[in-house]
Amino acid sequence: MSEFLQNAWYVAGWTHELDQNRTLARTIADYPLVFYRAAGEAVVCLLDRCPHRFAPLSMGRIEGDDLRCGYHGLRFGPDGVCRENPHGGMSKALRVRAFPVIERHRLLWVWTGEPDLADSAHIPELPFIDRAPEASFISGYVPTAANYLLMVDNILDLTHADYLHPESLGGGSMTRSTASIESMPRDSLRVTWIANDEPPLPIMRMNFPEPGARIDMWTEVQWWPSGVMTLITGGTPAGQPRSAGMNVQAVHIMTPATQSSTHYFYSNTRSFATDNVAVTENIAKALRFAFEQQDKPMIEGQQARIGSADLLSLHPALQRSDGPSTRARRILTRLVTEEADKPPQNRESASAATANP
Amino acid sequence: MSEFLQNAWYVAGWTHELDQNRTLARTIADYPLVFYRAAGEAVVCLLDRCPHRFAPLSMGRIEGDDLRCGYHGLRFGPDGVCRENPHGGMSKALRVRAFPVIERHRLLWVWTGEPDLADSAHIPELPFIDRAPEASFISGYVPTAANYLLMVDNILDLTHADYLHPESLGGGSMTRSTASIESMPRDSLRVTWIANDEPPLPIMRMNFPEPGARIDMWTEVQWWPSGVMTLITGGTPAGQPRSAGMNVQAVHIMTPATQSSTHYFYSNTRSFATDNVAVTENIAKALRFAFEQQDKPMIEGQQARIGSADLLSLHPALQRSDGPSTRARRILTRLVTEEADKPPQNRESASAATANP
Amino acid sequence: MSEFLQNAWYVAGWTHELDQNRTLARTIADYPLVFYRAAGEAVVCLLDRCPHRFAPLSMGRIEGDDLRCGYHGLRFGPDGVCRENPHGGMSKALRVRAFPVIERHRLLWVWTGEPDLADSAHIPELPFIDRAPEASFISGYVPTAANYLLMVDNILDLTHADYLHPESLGGGSMTRSTASIESMPRDSLRVTWIANDEPPLPIMRMNFPEPGARIDMWTEVQWWPSGVMTLITGGTPAGQPRSAGMNVQAVHIMTPATQSSTHYFYSNTRSFATDNVAVTENIAKALRFAFEQQDKPMIEGQQARIGSADLLSLHPALQRSDGPSTRARRILTRLVTEEADKPPQNRESASAATANP
Repeated sequence: MSEFLQNAWYVAGWTHELDQNRTLARTIADYPLVFYRAAGEAVVCLLDRCPHRFAPLSMGRIEGDDLRCGYHGLRFGPDGVCRENPHGGMSKALRVRAFPVIERHRLLWVWTGEPDLADSAHIPELPFIDRAPEASFISGYVPTAANYLLMVDNILDLTHADYLHPESLGGGSMTRSTASIESMPRDSLRVTWIANDEPPLPIMRMNFPEPGARIDMWTEVQWWPSGVMTLITGGTPAGQPRSAGMNVQAVHIMTPATQSSTHYFYSNTRSFATDNVAVTENIAKALRFAFEQQDKPMIEGQQARIGSADLLSLHPALQRSDGPSTRARRILTRLVTEEADKPPQNRESASAATANP
Repeated sequence: MSEFLQNAWYVAGWTHELDQNRTLARTIADYPLVFYRAAGEAVVCLLDRCPHRFAPLSMGRIEGDDLRCGYHGLRFGPDGVCRENPHGGMSKALRVRAFPVIERHRLLWVWTGEPDLADSAHIPELPFIDRAPEASFISGYVPTAANYLLMVDNILDLTHADYLHPESLGGGSMTRSTASIESMPRDSLRVTWIANDEPPLPIMRMNFPEPGARIDMWTEVQWWPSGVMTLITGGTPAGQPRSAGMNVQAVHIMTPATQSSTHYFYSNTRSFATDNVAVTENIAKALRFAFEQQDKPMIEGQQARIGSADLLSLHPALQRSDGPSTRARRILTRLVTEEADKPPQNRESASAATANP
Repeated sequence: MSEFLQNAWYVAGWTHELDQNRTLARTIADYPLVFYRAAGEAVVCLLDRCPHRFAPLSMGRIEGDDLRCGYHGLRFGPDGVCRENPHGGMSKALRVRAFPVIERHRLLWVWTGEPDLADSAHIPELPFIDRAPEASFISGYVPTAANYLLMVDNILDLTHADYLHPESLGGGSMTRSTASIESMPRDSLRVTWIANDEPPLPIMRMNFPEPGARIDMWTEVQWWPSGVMTLITGGTPAGQPRSAGMNVQAVHIMTPATQSSTHYFYSNTRSFATDNVAVTENIAKALRFAFEQQDKPMIEGQQARIGSADLLSLHPALQRSDGPSTRARRILTRLVTEEADKPPQNRESASAATANP
């Protein structure tokens, strides 16, 4: 898979990463992009390359709703059209590509495909982020030197937690479960793992402190083709209804930067101790360790051994637990192929977009 | 433009960079070169690669007029001919290419082309460097990760000062000026900007301290194809003759190291307060900030977005202010093409020169 | 020379580098390898790439004789066969290549070729390492960014010591000697330098402290195609039998990591002051300086100037002192060509080995 899906809402960052009066430069699916907050509060996303001489617009100045290039002073509006050219008249060439961008669920979403198809109704619904009290909301960003699909695979095969995170997120129960996969709307997949009558995961022991406690656990991951995943996991005393137990609601978002680098955004909130900041800090610490010190080096090591080859071309000895990730990759391949086969009228590829019109 | 002009005097460094008894290794136009000062005071320049086993001669020892390889002890004279071979007889192969090199105007000039054509009369005249009192002479070196032509463009379009250096070198007057361009001898160009009845530039305010002062300003850049540029700028109370005002004399020299890296040498001297070291230090600080913290990151960012493509192939939306740089690039393309079309008898390309004869 | 000899015992490390309960990851001749000590004390070497999803096995856990992948928990035995698959049944694909590995002479030896040909009798004999008292044994490891043949050349032309290490290992006597070369069994070479009636080398002055001392010196290097070299050097008062003098026994082992990086292992022991730790520390310090601060930067600089070209294709002006290294390179080229011409039945190339069967 060498091309990225174009018609997709990619997550470009947490909204709190976007300071007033400061641009944010981030490469998404090979597009160098600049984000800023206009005077009217709306977020703007432009190709981060002045059409005059290709200076990074992110090194420029926000002026009201506009962004002025810091090199020779051309000023561009939120639509990418030049509003002021200190050096002469206007022309069609004095335009930088603007990308549809939306703030929702505390995240920045950017659409890299045909603007006409950018329907914000297609953004995955993440209501638990909006509902989360500040005191129990955790979010993080882990830039990783690996292809984003290896990062997606990591979440779609949660058995890895039993071996890579045994002291926090794993305990063997994922391996003992079988994943069931359902097709969902918008080429999404839902994967469910059920593990009944198990000891609680280490990170759940505060919820089930009695020695020898046994619980029923459920874990549900929903994946969307843009690399967005929700992960809901919970536990309840064995035999009890879920409402008698606890659960955690998380996102794991793997946005491609380039073919060999990924923006990994995660969040975590929960059904218990929602105003207990000490609990939040403990969980945040455990997650940061698991994602930064365990997942990241393992997947970067995996990427180093794969090199620039396509994973499947190397004939991995796939297991039953690879079912969800294999199915997700197949969907993505189909979607990318469909985009390539039916080039829409005004579709621009990443390389075309980085040249001027 | 993928090849460098060969028949040119490139600036390789400031003479004060060349310590007695220490070699200086510097890549110029893709040639790895070693410079040293012979016992007789003359500067020597050799290809920095022993013909025996390609060790860097710059890691060797200066012995009188000669340079001895630090690996196996072959000794080479200033003409590149082996003077002593501890391991056997002499042969034609025991010779390293020597490059014509001259010290002039406090700079080291090296000729990468046909030795027979190396006429030191073709070195640009920079008399203001020779005349400058030590107390008011500033010089600097900024290695930059960008193609040298982007660095040349930066000086040939001084409107950038209005946006990139507004607190020191810019004030809007360059943008309000129009550049006039003249052809000069030796494929040189002179660009003149006139801006009358303007507020003084921030860096000139010590010269025109009265509130609301208005001055007439002139700026003159001369460019030579080897990347050498002089920049003379001055101001005088509006309507007064130039002799009633002040001026500054500078060089901005952009020597290609490789296609993606440049040796940027600059100097600055002036007509006022020439024995005031405190003024010199203030100006030096402002220039260092402008060139190292503003120009360098902007142009490196520009280079990163251009990648290995030729600038013009990307169809930049050129403005009137790009006139001088466009014309300079055109001259250079013609000169490089002429060299390629008429290969002289003893012309060696960079790659041939790095192989042994 | 673009391929490595396959049927060879390469040195992968010092045995003391292999901690109990810790894996050692090292790339040898382009193979990413993992070494560990099984519960039964034997050393195991596997390709460092899980066949499931290519995670580095070196990031896993040693369990008894086996190694468990740290990502999804597959467990492999010392033969590379999967012993436990938490995710399903066994299959032929669940196998990682195992490499013959032996501990001998305090070193780890790994065989990258056909397992059937791995005869430990072909490992060079280094009895002086086994005999060396701890108090006078020095060993070191210098990873170097250069092709291993440049590193081999360095030892096969010891005249370099006269110029690169004049304050320790050189004094001009190697240059005044002539090397004699003998063919030895197993495509090995022996090179002998004799220098009579010479001042002692700086590092030998403690052995011959009298002013104006003159000694007879001998140096003998034996080279094997896998990059292993022994170096025995000694001195005796001029005209006296060797038994009246001193000698030093060393190895210089240059194991290819990749085409542009080398694992350099060295050791040193001696015939005198064998229980004097202060002498050992002085010698260790001098060697570390010579190998890390002099050889390594010189050869890395040489590699930088050679780039990715083959040394001989650049027509170095070879000298008499290059005789041994030229002859060694010729032997190696013949051996590699023979391997390529007669591909054995079960021969796997490095690239084939890194794919799954």
